[in-house]
Amino acid sequence: MTISLALLGFGNVGRAFARLLLRKRADLAERYGITFRVTGIATGRHGIAIDPDGLDLTRALELVEAGQSLAPLSRKTIPDTGAFLAEVPADVLFENTPVNHETGEPAITHIRTALARGMHAITANKGPVVHAYGELTRLAAEKGRRFLFESTVMDGAPIFSLFREALPGARLLAFRGVLNSTTNLILTRMEAGETFEEAVAYAQSIGIAETDPSADVDGWDAAIKVAALVTVLMGIPLKPQEVEREGIRSITAEKIATARAEGKRWKLVCSARREGEGVLARVRPEKVSPDSPLYGVEGTTSIVQFETDVLGLLSVIEADPGPETTAYGLLADFLNAVRPQSY
Amino acid sequence: MTISLALLGFGNVGRAFARLLLRKRADLAERYGITFRVTGIATGRHGIAIDPDGLDLTRALELVEAGQSLAPLSRKTIPDTGAFLAEVPADVLFENTPVNHETGEPAITHIRTALARGMHAITANKGPVVHAYGELTRLAAEKGRRFLFESTVMDGAPIFSLFREALPGARLLAFRGVLNSTTNLILTRMEAGETFEEAVAYAQSIGIAETDPSADVDGWDAAIKVAALVTVLMGIPLKPQEVEREGIRSITAEKIATARAEGKRWKLVCSARREGEGVLARVRPEKVSPDSPLYGVEGTTSIVQFETDVLGLLSVIEADPGPETTAYGLLADFLNAVRPQSY
Repeated sequence: MTISLALLGFGNVGRAFARLLLRKRADLAERYGITFRVTGIATGRHGIAIDPDGLDLTRALELVEAGQSLAPLSRKTIPDTGAFLAEVPADVLFENTPVNHETGEPAITHIRTALARGMHAITANKGPVVHAYGELTRLAAEKGRRFLFESTVMDGAPIFSLFREALPGARLLAFRGVLNSTTNLILTRMEAGETFEEAVAYAQSIGIAETDPSADVDGWDAAIKVAALVTVLMGIPLKPQEVEREGIRSITAEKIATARAEGKRWKLVCSARREGEGVLARVRPEKVSPDSPLYGVEGTTSIVQFETDVLGLLSVIEADPGPETTAYGLLADFLNAVRPQSY
Repeated sequence: MTISLALLGFGNVGRAFARLLLRKRADLAERYGITFRVTGIATGRHGIAIDPDGLDLTRALELVEAGQSLAPLSRKTIPDTGAFLAEVPADVLFENTPVNHETGEPAITHIRTALARGMHAITANKGPVVHAYGELTRLAAEKGRRFLFESTVMDGAPIFSLFREALPGARLLAFRGVLNSTTNLILTRMEAGETFEEAVAYAQSIGIAETDPSADVDGWDAAIKVAALVTVLMGIPLKPQEVEREGIRSITAEKIATARAEGKRWKLVCSARREGEGVLARVRPEKVSPDSPLYGVEGTTSIVQFETDVLGLLSVIEADPGPETTAYGLLADFLNAVRPQSY
């Protein structure tokens, strides 16, 4: 089977995904009998291209990385994203436009349109998960398609698929983790003697923190991840605004030194615990002891610890995240959506 | 759908599984539409019972825990395991007889018989995995059934299902872990000042170590787990005897003190790495630094770190293992074998 793919968003993650598709092309054909073509790419600043016979992905990467437009690759002129979604002949849409934390738009509309047209919809964008999980999942089921989003929490590490596929029958009671790599890197560097401002500047210099670091530093990114995990894994719809939230601006060099003297470390801890029919969900700096697996999590590494009704604490740690690992989450979702069941 | 289950082996793990089935009965019906009856139980020392209409599982637990025979529950007299496997009317066999590290028998024969009769075969027994994985997996595929064994490594924590279901398209290049909880407990207690003999006696007193602790202490249990992971996850058949193996008898109080002074800890490390078409697999004591997630693994907790071609290091940690967590691995395999695909 040859599967037609549409890429909406061609930034760092979208391009890393394109490179991963090229690298894994032979492997997917051999292991799963899956072949694919990319029939459409829509970018924010480098034009839009559609070719039902398949675009030259290598050429598309070259053009965009040289700052040029994709339009010359297109069979016809596509004026905007709406036209792209209406016309692209594809079996799967990969939605990788920038996240809107407050409303999830326009990504929700993109995904709704793709599902309504009978495509699988796969995204690395947290907005649609926290703002429209129920609606989009129901729509996908009606259409016999999948809405998947493994890359939204801990990049490509298997978190949602872990519960969906590998932990059947388990009930998630609570979790606790370090899910924002920017703040963890900042705290790690402050422990090594940098000021908050120096650590933020370093995180910006390596492309981890935004020019305005507040989404990370004030705990919003972490809160959105908590909301996504609670919504999907606990089955309790939760908005980021409903997560108790405190960022790391209050963590001074003095506080870090005091914690060190106690043999502890400050971490921006994400947590949630069922309470009756509801949930207590929060993001806040906590002093962590060496007996916790959170203690040893350095730099951009992330961790989540799950408490279920069937196992002891189960932790997943992901080291060295980046656009490539986020891209793998998209690939895993793609394969889980389309591969023949292996059993 | 009502599924008929046969339990071969009714020791700590088999009984924990029976209790978990009772506890999860309503949940499985509600979440998956799965109902079940246990049509047969064969024990080593408490008789054998078959009832096509379903045995009273609570009563069976009471009888065996009171040291009595199950035979009075049986519709007919079943003389031995062979007759049990030939006659029990079941859709799934749970094979939980004691492991035979050298040959995998008689568990392999039990599983082969069950698959040939058209049952799914699920086991917590490592023997069949390291000695007959290829044959049993092919036989299961021919019969349209599953041969599953999640509980053989890290109890019920998802390891095999992680790669099978949640990491499609990934290639495992190497792994490194602490997979034998008895030796890890012994080393942890020696760090706290106990002698090797005292630590072994403690592990025996809480039912973790056998009367003859050599399977753990000399690294055989760890080597079998390495062989199972390499065989299944790397696709390279490997026998436990082919794993380079060194146990923990050489680790003295002095060595532990020296490591401590260096800020390190001794761990019995299981590892494997692809080398060309082959694999370098070994079990040996190693001094581990605090920058490794293996460092913080205390007591009976276990960890495995996976190196793949698509993600940074991915670690899974399982705390507080026991018969209940092993039982969950059996339940997860059961649900993965029979549940309608959720998507």
